[in-house]
Amino acid sequence: MPREVGIVGIGHTSFGKWNRSFVELCCTAAVEALEDAGICRNSGKVDQLLLSTMGAQTLNHQSGVASALADTLNLRPAMAETVENGPASGASAVKLAYTEIASGFCDVVLVIGAEMMRTVNSKRCTDLVATLLHPEVEYPYGLTLPAMAGLFTRLCMEQYGVTEEDLARVAIKNHQHAIHNPLAQFHSELIFEKISGEGAKNPYVAEPLHLYDVCPISDGAVALVLCAMDVADHFAKRPVRIRGIGQATDTHTVAEREAPTELLAVRLAAQKAYAMSGLTPGDIDVAELHDAFVILEIVESEEVGFFPRGQGHLAVRRGETKIGGRIPVNTSGGLKAKGHPLGATGVSQIHELVVQLRGEAGERQVKGAKVGLAINFGGFGNNVVATVLTREEL
Amino acid sequence: MPREVGIVGIGHTSFGKWNRSFVELCCTAAVEALEDAGICRNSGKVDQLLLSTMGAQTLNHQSGVASALADTLNLRPAMAETVENGPASGASAVKLAYTEIASGFCDVVLVIGAEMMRTVNSKRCTDLVATLLHPEVEYPYGLTLPAMAGLFTRLCMEQYGVTEEDLARVAIKNHQHAIHNPLAQFHSELIFEKISGEGAKNPYVAEPLHLYDVCPISDGAVALVLCAMDVADHFAKRPVRIRGIGQATDTHTVAEREAPTELLAVRLAAQKAYAMSGLTPGDIDVAELHDAFVILEIVESEEVGFFPRGQGHLAVRRGETKIGGRIPVNTSGGLKAKGHPLGATGVSQIHELVVQLRGEAGERQVKGAKVGLAINFGGFGNNVVATVLTREEL
Repeated sequence: MPREVGIVGIGHTSFGKWNRSFVELCCTAAVEALEDAGICRNSGKVDQLLLSTMGAQTLNHQSGVASALADTLNLRPAMAETVENGPASGASAVKLAYTEIASGFCDVVLVIGAEMMRTVNSKRCTDLVATLLHPEVEYPYGLTLPAMAGLFTRLCMEQYGVTEEDLARVAIKNHQHAIHNPLAQFHSELIFEKISGEGAKNPYVAEPLHLYDVCPISDGAVALVLCAMDVADHFAKRPVRIRGIGQATDTHTVAEREAPTELLAVRLAAQKAYAMSGLTPGDIDVAELHDAFVILEIVESEEVGFFPRGQGHLAVRRGETKIGGRIPVNTSGGLKAKGHPLGATGVSQIHELVVQLRGEAGERQVKGAKVGLAINFGGFGNNVVATVLTREEL
Repeated sequence: MPREVGIVGIGHTSFGKWNRSFVELCCTAAVEALEDAGICRNSGKVDQLLLSTMGAQTLNHQSGVASALADTLNLRPAMAETVENGPASGASAVKLAYTEIASGFCDVVLVIGAEMMRTVNSKRCTDLVATLLHPEVEYPYGLTLPAMAGLFTRLCMEQYGVTEEDLARVAIKNHQHAIHNPLAQFHSELIFEKISGEGAKNPYVAEPLHLYDVCPISDGAVALVLCAMDVADHFAKRPVRIRGIGQATDTHTVAEREAPTELLAVRLAAQKAYAMSGLTPGDIDVAELHDAFVILEIVESEEVGFFPRGQGHLAVRRGETKIGGRIPVNTSGGLKAKGHPLGATGVSQIHELVVQLRGEAGERQVKGAKVGLAINFGGFGNNVVATVLTREEL
């Protein structure tokens, strides 16, 4: 039997703009997580550091950063690696940390997710993300992720009756949630009339996607301390348990999928995570779904089993995914309003679930939350990781 | 107790120059490994693909390549990630694959290590590797890895009496071994008089390091199929067992080390791998030591316990590290003569040990080899992974 694994420390910088170095960004979140767990920085208690970053080499001109962090954080001779899985790098790093502990190879692993995108021209960020697309049949033709999301959104509109107003409703909800998250990039309320319909100040980015349907470019870092449940009482905080992890890949190109509006990898990843946890969609109290483009939140909410296919947008209209609704989604503000520093995002989603399951979410607290689900989405749905967390006692 | 883990399939492209795409490079090695293991490509038997690459994003302008490989190899919905740990990425990927299986989370993991460096100007490769150095106190001053290795070599000469002729002897030995490795980049015999002393055609690269003391720039890919020993008889090949893995980090900058000619991370990593395996330096029959610069092979051979400190070069003079000697080192030709495609190297070292432990190394076979050790070296010794492999029956 694998060992049980929990999360006993969390740290999170403000998302937005960072003015110091990439290493300092990572260390800021890490020190907060180590302090939260009650680990003295030179206690030697950390066996492994896993850094999740997608673009440090391209955007910040640094390699082997994980080794630099182990030294800077005074964790030597702790092991250190970097994990990359596009925008799903964060949940992948948590998964690998989980297996290192579950196998008995490590007791304590520090996961850091970080990205620093705003030091370079936004076109370089768009290009970096576009290199996730197929290098022969997509990228060379100038396809970008927003363009792909525009095509995907158009298909969903035709097939299920999703409207531009539904997209605006998701953005408004997530901005509303972010107002109560001090670490979010945006704290501005969006007004329906100002972003939707005639006279709205919300230009198309990739028709039918408007500016406010798309996540921003962000700097930020998040850290988690994971440990074996059998050593968890050495730490200051009560653990939140990792109960299920599922992951699945899909075709590299969307064009090759039998049903291009379905996100098969989301469905398979969630099913695997539910099976491992022994829980079902009905058990989930709070979810972070990867809303790099707001249409993704809608379709993911169907694929993970919260709503029937084609009805996610109807649930948004009814307010079911708001805080206070049946199944609150993206209480942190989501990628849309909290921000989307690529390698940090998957770790940030799990951070938000830990905050919720600890009951420390303040004004955005989902009352009595016991079980959380995160969906971290790589490529255009070609590599998806689902994570189920529960309060310790469950 | 963690599950035991073995290697049941291996694949390896020729190192040198690759003329097709990065994905094709990876798939060439992967298909060979899957076929070696007897896995049909659409059998669904592979749970996870781990890609080790250091520079695919910078050198080949591709991200999320692991997902693309899962699709191209028809392994969907297998999980997929990329692991980066500088030039030690390969052994790091094998380590993480090990823990995924040992924990019971996976049964079968495909590890692919690959780098394609010769598509770009060699100055870009040198710069990529230099980004491993400290971004504030080393890199901005123009320090490169060869320059660092030159300084390190000079110190070893002053402290232990290593000579330029000793360096040449290591290069000659590794080139001699590579003649019998059809996959090596170089098959040319080096003649002592032609590379050493007056009239030699062997210019300084970073004094006292000559051209032939330094590894080349290479393209290449290597793949391994790892599985739980409890399912190993589903596969065509008898497994080689992973018996010990150790890893350690050291200070980011060499200047901060108390003893700058010692490679503390090599020593600690090897000690941990020995402890996990229950074996000692005297049990090792064959070793692959990371000779990006030949001085490293000498110092590593001391740190892993083959020879007393300061006497590695004397062992080279006595021929103890040749095939047929007491402890043959770098039977594959090493990074020096086999080539050094960064992310592939650690996987290639383990590939060579598997070939030796299977008894399939032909003219470079170490007779009766039962136990092998690999040292994969990241940064300038700031992150080192040691792996101990044994024949199945041990």
